[in-house]
Amino acid sequence: MPAPPPTQQEIAMPPSPTRMIHFGSFNVTSQVFHTTAHSFALVNLKPLLPGHILVCPLQPKPLLRDLTATETADLFQTVTRVQKTLRRVYKAEAFNVAVQDGEAAGQSVKHVHCHVIPRKTKDEGGDDKVHEWLEGKEGDVGRHQAEGSVGEREGGGWARDEDRKPRGREEMEREAVLLKEEMAKDEET
Amino acid sequence: MPAPPPTQQEIAMPPSPTRMIHFGSFNVTSQVFHTTAHSFALVNLKPLLPGHILVCPLQPKPLLRDLTATETADLFQTVTRVQKTLRRVYKAEAFNVAVQDGEAAGQSVKHVHCHVIPRKTKDEGGDDKVHEWLEGKEGDVGRHQAEGSVGEREGGGWARDEDRKPRGREEMEREAVLLKEEMAKDEET
Repeated sequence: MPAPPPTQQEIAMPPSPTRMIHFGSFNVTSQVFHTTAHSFALVNLKPLLPGHILVCPLQPKPLLRDLTATETADLFQTVTRVQKTLRRVYKAEAFNVAVQDGEAAGQSVKHVHCHVIPRKTKDEGGDDKVHEWLEGKEGDVGRHQAEGSVGEREGGGWARDEDRKPRGREEMEREAVLLKEEMAKDEET
Repeated sequence: MPAPPPTQQEIAMPPSPTRMIHFGSFNVTSQVFHTTAHSFALVNLKPLLPGHILVCPLQPKPLLRDLTATETADLFQTVTRVQKTLRRVYKAEAFNVAVQDGEAAGQSVKHVHCHVIPRKTKDEGGDDKVHEWLEGKEGDVGRHQAEGSVGEREGGGWARDEDRKPRGREEMEREAVLLKEEMAKDEET
């Protein structure tokens, strides 16, 4: 028996709306694992440490000062909401929470993004990795996203070199799906 | 002519109320240059770069997750409020905004504190200084506050060594007074 034609309500509100989400000029929809009224959280192309994710305002505003009070509140409440799940999933004991608020502070994508980096007391080279990030050698989310995009355009391969190998889209999507499921387990009931 | 006796209103509301403000166990009242309903901003004993300040919740809660939604919103709105004045006074082009959220992330004082570090495109050794901070060699606000306190107890001198010399109380108080005045100039009218 064929499916009945969609009702007017189904046409107006599709059952699984796919909202395109952009981080700067990059379509990162498949990397996103959590959205709120004003913010989204996405997995990283090249995490400094396991579970290193980014939280952004949905509006692609460059600086913290560009956000409304509501957007600022939502962004950092989203950080603490995401920490709850990262703490459990990645056995995090602490977090580096950091915004490079402008180019002179190392910002590469002109869209506010708050790094949330799970830490353990004895995480392997954790301090070094966070330091390299601040020196701009690692964690350049703009360059990584661009490399990823280039790789895609060139036929499915990903840009890589011996030292810095961005993750494949599939691995990121798997992590995003996993984190989305894990986030649901922590929802207030 | 002697001053008239204080009115009942003046007794109830002294003209310059001095509220003791603590950062962890340290009384930092004289370092504070801005307070809100839930947050305060203070100058640093040893800034990494000029204008490096801290924003804290008034309640001495250790982690971001311990804050109420209202406290979180107020904390980061205070960060952007303070940035406005730092941008003008220190000619900042950008900011590193960072919370070491737990001991394994480098937190030294168990009281949430958000570092706000003004940056310029060509600030002298800025990246190195921010990196040393994350490695824990500099910017350990807990140790610095403790050194300051020890120095005071030992008769007015300040703990110092050749490489790391915390500022004197007078210099910090001067900066706090200056920033308080400058903050007032930026108040919305």
